[in-house]
Amino acid sequence: MAATPVTLEPTTLPSLRLSAKYSGLRIDAVRTNATLEAACTWGNTSDGGMNRLTCNNDDKSVRDWFISETKKYGCHHRVDEMGNIFAIRPGQNNNLPPIGLGSHLDTQPTGGKYDGILGVVCGMEVLRVLHANSITTYAPVAIINWTNEEGARFPPAMLCSGVWGGEFTVKYAQGRQDLEGNTLGGELKRIGYMGPTPCSFEANPLLAHFEVHIEQGPILDVAEKPVGIVRGVQSIRWYNVGVQGREAHTGTTPMDRRSDALLGAAKMIVETNRIVTETEVASRGGRATIAVINSSPQSINTIAGKVNIGLDIRAPADSDVGLIEKQCREGFAKICQQHSLEMTFDNFWISPALNFDPTMVECVKQSSSQIGCDIEIVSGAGHDSVYTSRKVPTAMIFVRCKDGVSHHPAEYSRDEDCAAGAEALLGAYLRYDDYIRR
Amino acid sequence: MAATPVTLEPTTLPSLRLSAKYSGLRIDAVRTNATLEAACTWGNTSDGGMNRLTCNNDDKSVRDWFISETKKYGCHHRVDEMGNIFAIRPGQNNNLPPIGLGSHLDTQPTGGKYDGILGVVCGMEVLRVLHANSITTYAPVAIINWTNEEGARFPPAMLCSGVWGGEFTVKYAQGRQDLEGNTLGGELKRIGYMGPTPCSFEANPLLAHFEVHIEQGPILDVAEKPVGIVRGVQSIRWYNVGVQGREAHTGTTPMDRRSDALLGAAKMIVETNRIVTETEVASRGGRATIAVINSSPQSINTIAGKVNIGLDIRAPADSDVGLIEKQCREGFAKICQQHSLEMTFDNFWISPALNFDPTMVECVKQSSSQIGCDIEIVSGAGHDSVYTSRKVPTAMIFVRCKDGVSHHPAEYSRDEDCAAGAEALLGAYLRYDDYIRR
Ligand SMILES: NC(=O)NCCC(=O)O
Ligand SMILES: NC(=O)NCCC(=O)O
Repeated sequence: MAATPVTLEPTTLPSLRLSAKYSGLRIDAVRTNATLEAACTWGNTSDGGMNRLTCNNDDKSVRDWFISETKKYGCHHRVDEMGNIFAIRPGQNNNLPPIGLGSHLDTQPTGGKYDGILGVVCGMEVLRVLHANSITTYAPVAIINWTNEEGARFPPAMLCSGVWGGEFTVKYAQGRQDLEGNTLGGELKRIGYMGPTPCSFEANPLLAHFEVHIEQGPILDVAEKPVGIVRGVQSIRWYNVGVQGREAHTGTTPMDRRSDALLGAAKMIVETNRIVTETEVASRGGRATIAVINSSPQSINTIAGKVNIGLDIRAPADSDVGLIEKQCREGFAKICQQHSLEMTFDNFWISPALNFDPTMVECVKQSSSQIGCDIEIVSGAGHDSVYTSRKVPTAMIFVRCKDGVSHHPAEYSRDEDCAAGAEALLGAYLRYDDYIRR
Repeated sequence: MAATPVTLEPTTLPSLRLSAKYSGLRIDAVRTNATLEAACTWGNTSDGGMNRLTCNNDDKSVRDWFISETKKYGCHHRVDEMGNIFAIRPGQNNNLPPIGLGSHLDTQPTGGKYDGILGVVCGMEVLRVLHANSITTYAPVAIINWTNEEGARFPPAMLCSGVWGGEFTVKYAQGRQDLEGNTLGGELKRIGYMGPTPCSFEANPLLAHFEVHIEQGPILDVAEKPVGIVRGVQSIRWYNVGVQGREAHTGTTPMDRRSDALLGAAKMIVETNRIVTETEVASRGGRATIAVINSSPQSINTIAGKVNIGLDIRAPADSDVGLIEKQCREGFAKICQQHSLEMTFDNFWISPALNFDPTMVECVKQSSSQIGCDIEIVSGAGHDSVYTSRKVPTAMIFVRCKDGVSHHPAEYSRDEDCAAGAEALLGAYLRYDDYIRR
């Protein structure tokens, strides 16, 4: 398990600099934003947001578009058995694996136009800069669309970068089901994106992975900075909690003779909130949320007999996530005892806190400082880079988003900030390509 | 609005007695229970219960069976535009409307084999007794299957006896939707049970209405009595409560910057329970339950933006239901204020407390006392008799059920108790037929 992110030790870093032949390259801000708009052609909603759940028909359309666009800039493609798409542009040394510039094109059901999409688009802009300037980089480069980063339709999140990074087996991931019981594997086949390439670092390696992503938090917005340097990612665990009571008539069953599963679940939701707002973990940034609930039999005059809830716990430190989990378990057990309920408590996903690779982060720092940005952030959200970092040097660039809002149609990043993200990516990536060459 | 049920004043009642030609009639206990079993042929579940939601294919099958069975005992049929079925056996004076013996064949999704079904079956047994003994009663008799009593698929409950009794319009009732958006009218047409008879007392009158029903509460079970006399029905109101918050990322949104609609709804569920267990209404039998919840967008890492809950409030006195409602409104409003939520609070169904007709109740009393039963009960559940009582003299007979459990597959009434229900119905009904003749 990775430790809590700590301040990097710059003294141990190799010296990095951008070679002269790269130093004049700039991204095209207008083009970047036009590409972003094009990437939102499928699945946009009347409220200005996006609803492009993994493997729905809009996800197929944007994948087709991604492949045809990147083909125009000299890429060939690998689609792996989890639907991850690698658009590869050759370098001088094609014995090396490509440097990945990746993120995701799937969205939340009430998502915005930036989360994930911006990262893929920034990679595409880097590609166009190289192509327009007839640059052959040292290592090949791969622009990557990772499948099902959100985990909204097929939990957990970052599922297919997770398979590539060795966290999940292909079998587990292909078997994940949506609420209707459709499997991810079946849906990948249906839209024609279960590819022939094995999904793993070992079979289809990268040399490194950069990712641009909107911050999804308020730090850059408050600091009035377009981009930030991501030091690492906080600790996350997800749970399914099942509550079993007893169906009975709402009108005839005395209040003291009930096993009301929904009342129990409601008390668990309130207790979870109390733990992260009123106990010691609150001061250390602990967060916990229940945002999925399924109650049965959903009849207004039958007391709920069975309720399932999804629990999301986060904190900068793994130990605090552990502490919140412990308090939830104990609190929930008491509620069950009080109301004669049975409970199942299944921790189906763990993403420990992690620090990104110091050399990669240094590349991001140098290129961000070129545009006047030096804020370092620990990410509150998980990203595909969490799993690429298990196998290869990885770093991320955050782009400011308004009020820190995401997973909402109102999610918004200014045009100039999106362009700044692409600019920072170009500089960081070229620095690393230079570093590899030396 | 009807007042709280009070003790009946027997001094004001007409004298009632059973004429000699009826006094030898007895129901057939074995046949009654065989009919009950037959009525559960469609929609029974592996756990011993029933799942026969209104207008599903099983509901169509049991309706077909009900018509073909009652035809065998000399009935002709009227199906009204709400799918209510009247199996009518002529009497000596066919200028009179029939005396109704009714209940319902639909069930909860996690229902049992007795709730509603037993009442229709007891009516069918009375019919067979008359038929087997070649009795021509004074008034005609109608065995009735009322549509959608449970309200589980199409809230509110007692919907189609409610139309007949003038509480709801046909348009309102036919337009009620299930969770998938199917209308009751559409589903009635689909199964071929939107009949030509107008649905109203005025167009298709009854003279009176008797109903046998399982108690769904513990009083008879504790008293060890097979049947009980129903004095009236407690006050019931149903509500849809909408909670509007703001979607946001679970991982990046600080706890103090959230409008979490599911947290708000959970606090409302807990508050509702507190009101009926810890305030003064608790001692006066107040009950309140939330058993339906729909949260959106149902993604584990997006804070819920919108939640709808269904609230069921009951008490013997209308004033206490009003008091609970008031406390809920106030408590919910505070929760909304605390969490920056918006609320809608829609009271879509009111069924005031009521007393049944004294003469009809006296018929039930006399016939119940014949089998040694004299316990009087105020019903905690609503029944079709609530709405027939708006138009015609109405009374009910309760049958003991194990541990008072209903709306659960474990719902159970002994064979002998089911037979006792039919016996009490036969005696009460014949007393009333005699009373009309005089
Ligand atoms: N960036 C993002 O929303 N990723 C999904 C995983 C998470 O919930 O942190
Ligand atoms: N008997 C019965 O469960 N009727 C449904 C209406 C109610 O909930 O009371």
